[in-house]
This record gives sequence, C-alpha cells and structure tokens, in this order.
Amino acid sequence: MALIVMKFGGTSVGSVERIQNVARKAIAAQKAGDQIIIVSSAMSGETNKLIALAEQITKLPDPREMDQIVATGENVACGLVAIAINSLGGKAKSYTGFQVPVYTDKAFMKARISDIRPENLLKDVKAGIIPVVTGFQGLDADGNITTLGRGGSDLSAVAVAAAVKADRCDIYTDVDGVYTTDPNMCPSARKLTKITHEEMLEAASLGAKVLQTRSVEFAMKWKVPLQVRSSFSDAPGTMIVEETKDMEGLVASNVAYDKNEAKVTVQKVPDKPGIAAKIFKAIGDANINIDMIVQNVSADSTTDLTFTVTKAELTRTKALIEPLAKELGAAGVATDSNIAKISVVGLGMRSYAGVAGRMFEALAREGINILMISTSEIKISVVISDKYTELAVRTLHDEFKLGG
Amino acid sequence: MALIVMKFGGTSVGSVERIQNVARKAIAAQKAGDQIIIVSSAMSGETNKLIALAEQITKLPDPREMDQIVATGENVACGLVAIAINSLGGKAKSYTGFQVPVYTDKAFMKARISDIRPENLLKDVKAGIIPVVTGFQGLDADGNITTLGRGGSDLSAVAVAAAVKADRCDIYTDVDGVYTTDPNMCPSARKLTKITHEEMLEAASLGAKVLQTRSVEFAMKWKVPLQVRSSFSDAPGTMIVEETKDMEGLVASNVAYDKNEAKVTVQKVPDKPGIAAKIFKAIGDANINIDMIVQNVSADSTTDLTFTVTKAELTRTKALIEPLAKELGAAGVATDSNIAKISVVGLGMRSYAGVAGRMFEALAREGINILMISTSEIKISVVISDKYTELAVRTLHDEFKLGG
Repeated sequence: MALIVMKFGGTSVGSVERIQNVARKAIAAQKAGDQIIIVSSAMSGETNKLIALAEQITKLPDPREMDQIVATGENVACGLVAIAINSLGGKAKSYTGFQVPVYTDKAFMKARISDIRPENLLKDVKAGIIPVVTGFQGLDADGNITTLGRGGSDLSAVAVAAAVKADRCDIYTDVDGVYTTDPNMCPSARKLTKITHEEMLEAASLGAKVLQTRSVEFAMKWKVPLQVRSSFSDAPGTMIVEETKDMEGLVASNVAYDKNEAKVTVQKVPDKPGIAAKIFKAIGDANINIDMIVQNVSADSTTDLTFTVTKAELTRTKALIEPLAKELGAAGVATDSNIAKISVVGLGMRSYAGVAGRMFEALAREGINILMISTSEIKISVVISDKYTELAVRTLHDEFKLGG
Repeated sequence: MALIVMKFGGTSVGSVERIQNVARKAIAAQKAGDQIIIVSSAMSGETNKLIALAEQITKLPDPREMDQIVATGENVACGLVAIAINSLGGKAKSYTGFQVPVYTDKAFMKARISDIRPENLLKDVKAGIIPVVTGFQGLDADGNITTLGRGGSDLSAVAVAAAVKADRCDIYTDVDGVYTTDPNMCPSARKLTKITHEEMLEAASLGAKVLQTRSVEFAMKWKVPLQVRSSFSDAPGTMIVEETKDMEGLVASNVAYDKNEAKVTVQKVPDKPGIAAKIFKAIGDANINIDMIVQNVSADSTTDLTFTVTKAELTRTKALIEPLAKELGAAGVATDSNIAKISVVGLGMRSYAGVAGRMFEALAREGINILMISTSEIKISVVISDKYTELAVRTLHDEFKLGG
C-alpha cells in the first residue's frame, strides 16, 4: 500500500464532467490499494475571471485582498471534487489552506511555503477518507490568506507530498508526460519514462511548460518522487527522479525551443568597465527580464553587446536603451524578433566531451547559422533565425538519437 | 463618535459600480466622524450559481462541502469592497469567518452563531481601518466552514454589532425602509421612521421580506439598534427599536399580505381526539410547513379541519392527505389556491380593544368575505379570496389611519 498525492490542474477540473473523471480516478486508485490525497487547482479560467473583476476597480489592487479573492477558486474546485467523490460512493473532505494548515511567509501573491502540518491529512487517509487540498494557497503567521503565484498548485502538491512522506506525487495534466522534444515539431519525439530533476529544471525554464520550476526544485530538495501524467488516460507518464548510475549512457534527454524571445544588440559600445552594468541596471530597474547575454572579446576598443528579452517587452526595451546607447557613445541599437532559441539538455554533458561541437556541426550541415550561444553545466542553447526552428529541432533530435 | 455596522446585501454589491458606491458610503461615514465596520453578502446571483454548479454533480451534495463552496461568494465580495475602499484612499481589510473569528455550531447550511471575538475588528477600527466582514459564514469548533442559511448575512451583521457593542447596525437594502404597507399595492403607504422589534418580527414572518426573522430576534435579545435603509440614497430609513411610551398612540403599524399560500380543508372529519394529530404528524414528517390552522367547534360529530401551506407544496400535501382522509373516515379534501392572507400588525392591539371588530367590519363594508381568521397578541390575519387583495390592503390601511 502506497501513499500517493494526485495533483490536478485547472484543465483537469475544468468542467463538471472532468471533475467526475477526477473523482473516478481517485476512487479507482484507492480501490487498487493505495492511500490517496488530492491537490487541486481552480477550474480553468476562474482565477483569471477573479483577477479581471478586481482590475475593473483598480489596476493596482491591494495584494492581501487579491489573495483573499483568488484563493476562492481552489475552494470551489476542491469542494466540487469532494462532492463528486462522495456522490460516487467514496469518502472525501476538502481542505482550504488554513484547514490543513499550510503555513507560508507574508509575501502576498508570491508566498513561499514554510510549513505544512500533516496530522489532519494523515488521520483522514488512515480512515479511508480522501483529503482534497486546495493548491496555490496558504496562511501566514497573522492569519492572512496567501497565494503562491502562478503555477503554485504544483508546488503545493509536492510540499504536501513531502509533509506526509508520500511514496509518489503524480502531477496530472493535459500532456501524458515529458517528451524528448515537442511532438508537434518532430514526429519521432518520444515520451521519456524518466528524467532527472536537474534536466527537468533546465527543460522547464526553457519553455517545456510541463511543471512549475519551483516545484521541481522542491521535489529535488525533499526527494519527492514525481510523475507527470495525463488526466485523460491511465497510461503511466514520466517519472522525475534523482540521478542514478543507469542514466550515464545518455548524452541528452531533451531538445527544447522557445520562439518567444527577441534579440537586442547595442552596437560598438566603448569597451570600458561599467558600461554593461549601466545598461543592465536600467533594464532591471524597469522590471524587464533578460534571458541570454553575449559579449564578444573586442578586436578594437569597442564591442557589440547582445541580449534577449521576451517579444512582449521588446518595444519598451528599445525605448529605454536607445537614448542610453547614445549617451554611452555606442553606434546604435539593432533588434531582431525573428529568432528562436534551441536548447539541448542532458546530464550526460557533464561526462561526455564534444557535445557542443556535435551540436554546432549538425546545425552547420543543414546550413543553419548560429547567432548566439549560451551554456550551462547540463545545457547548450543557441539562438538561430526562427525560420529554421523545426529543421534545427529535428536535426538535433536525430543527432542525439532521442527518437523512438 | 459612534461605532456603526453597515450591512450590504447582494443587490448592493451586485456590480463593480455598486461596490464602488458602497466604498464611497463607508468612507463618507468615516469622514463624518464615525467608526465603521462593513458586513457584506455575496454579489447577487453568485450563491445561486455556486449551488447550481454543485447540483450538476448530484442533487444531494454533502452539506459540509456545500458550505465550503458557497462561502466563497462572500470572500470575493468582501475582498472587492476592501479593494474599492483602498483604491479611493481609505483603509480597509476583509475578514472571512475564520479570520474574525465567527464561531458557530456544527449544523452545516443552517448554522447558528455561538460566539464572535471582537478583538481583531476593534483593533482595526481604532487604527482607522474599515474591517469588511463576510456575512453568512462562520467556523465550527472542528475548523469546518459553516453557513447560516438564506438571509444569514443580516444575522451576521447584527451579531457583529452585538459583539463589538456597536451604537447602530444599518441594514442597507434595495428598499428605503419599512412601510405601513406595500407602496405598489397602496399609494398612500408611508415609510415608518420607527417600528418595534416585535412588530417587525410579525411583519417579517408575514412576508414583508425586508429583514431576516432571526436577525430581528437577535437584535431584540441583544438590544442592537437596527436601521433598514437604502443603499442607493442617503435618506434615513426605518429604525427598529425597543418599545417605548410614545408608541402607545398607535393601534397598528403595518398591513401585510401574502399571496403565496393555498388552503386545504379536510371535510367532515370525525370529531375525536387524536385525529388532528395524525394529520399534522403526517404533514410534519413530510417536511411540509403549515402556517394557519383553523378548526371550528363542531355542530354534529364531525368537523372541518382547514390549514394553509405554500402553493408550491399544495400538490404534495394533497397527495399525502387524500388517502389519510379516507382512512380516517373524512368526507373528502377540498383545496383552494386563489387565496390571500391579509394581516394587521401593531403593538397597540395589546391595549386597544375592538381592533379585530374594526378590521372585520371594514372588510365587510367592502363585501369581502373572510375565509379564515388567526390571531396573535399583536397581529390579526385573515384569509380572503385573492382577487380582493388590493382592495383589502387599501381598506385596512385607511381604517387604521396608516396613510401619509
């Protein structure tokens, strides 16, 4: 008998029919001999609806009150899931953040979980009751309701699993696992049976969008075995696991791409200390997020400074940088939004030499020009012209033998 | 400086504009020098929407989970009111039932308030903050969320007012006070500047629908001065007060009517002990509410037993009573749903003799036949044919000189 936390996202509880499907899954798992705890998000669309309502009053609503309001979406979804389980002959009881309780710090709208008391939940599972816990929300030390920020329900599920020492935390979503790359982009993409936390973290932050980054970090830290699987089938998904010996044979696990970035180049910047700092401080102060930064060694006394931002923030970035570039004596600012970032992720890179070379060579064979390069211990990212996205993904997927 | 509890119903917070109106009212009252606590219902329609969602899953949803779900309507409304006050330069903070806290018994969907801790609310008002408290909901001793049943927000407001020892509890609604009768029925109807708790109780239970009955009982018991007033104007409303000497001049305060009942007569029932008990036990067991009961002294060994139920329950009542009437040896069952109940309410009846006589005589002058009569210490109700409703209301309103 295993203790399993089942986490359902907004799409999985997006209608009465889907809520009944969740109830059937939980009851079946319980009948198969496991102890079950559910963590659920709000029904899809509900959180946005509540935010829109508040923003009709003011564009800057009080964060404490926003949390008071948006947390209700999870209360409703969990109540409905419990009703569905009870109506099908099971036994369930919904828990809000204060009822578990899930304690957090005081940072409204982006709170961090500080402690979860497992006693109530464990008493229920021992009595054959399925606790249905609201994701995304908690309680601070002053009794205020807090929320964890977007995607926070994944984190709630992993934290609950850690608190009750669950044997596994299953994240049910609308995809059936983690793939070697996007199947829509590359027909030979293959579902991975397992991937390490480290690889998943790089893939998540690179746009794979399957799991919230903080939840993977938390699972890694507290050694919670995670599984990503589909709420619309019974097929096993992808296990996110600690690194083990038998993984060493693989160089790469994943080819990711992101077409949502744009490139900004400040041309012929005087190559003096403090110049880059001035530029990036201005961007940081404007709350614009930068992804990649590249600065070449300069041949003369100037250098080109290139970085990427999201396409949505390109106009604002340009308006901010152009006067600054002039002031700093740069030649000008060039931008390009027709780019794509392609990344190869794999723990194997740490032990296999020449991965970067293989990657660049494969792209060169197809005549794909590399505009920027950035690397981490287990990842190599390149920026290319976006018209080559599909070709690059397929080429690298083949090169690293990720196909089925 | 007075401490005022302002209670707003669902219509008063039914849109973003109305919520902003509530915020302006509260800020104005605070600027005028009073300390303010708001109690709010859910936005109109929200509670029904949540119930409908649950009933799509099952017609008999678990009461604990229903309370978990429907209580969220008030959380959202109170959060929005607090946001509106803060956005207009005021200071506000919303409170759910568990945050006040408001303790209740364990009767889900019809809980009774057992205790309200005033400390958090009083600390806020002293600091110039307007607490915005969720009506309708509380917390039981096991940490479950409970709700008080329909119209429970009025009760929440009165209970909060009693707990903080407020100088007044203002119930804001879509009418501007308590009238001598329905102005739509009788053009000379007049807004009362005050009415006693006892009279209001009779009027409320007779269909005046301005205040929930339990909230008036609670205000009477805890001596909370209540005012019913409009959320769409600044005009003073009607004070619901304890009985005072200067009220003795008035025989009646109010003519009420109710067209929602139907009459059932069990004809020629054998006049023996235990027969009525059998009939009414059967009706009670079926959870059908009876209002008036009349049984005449019998001329022979049989009697006619007449009672009223709501029109909605007439068919079910008839189906229940007909076989029973046969079994008991009655001649048959007659029903009439074209009836209206007209009531005259007034504390003065206790000291003035002949009120019933004046009432019956006035109706007789207009040729209105009385089908049933029922009296309490401060109320006389008659059942008549419903086509005479308007005529009877106007006649009695004139007879007791209630006009403006």
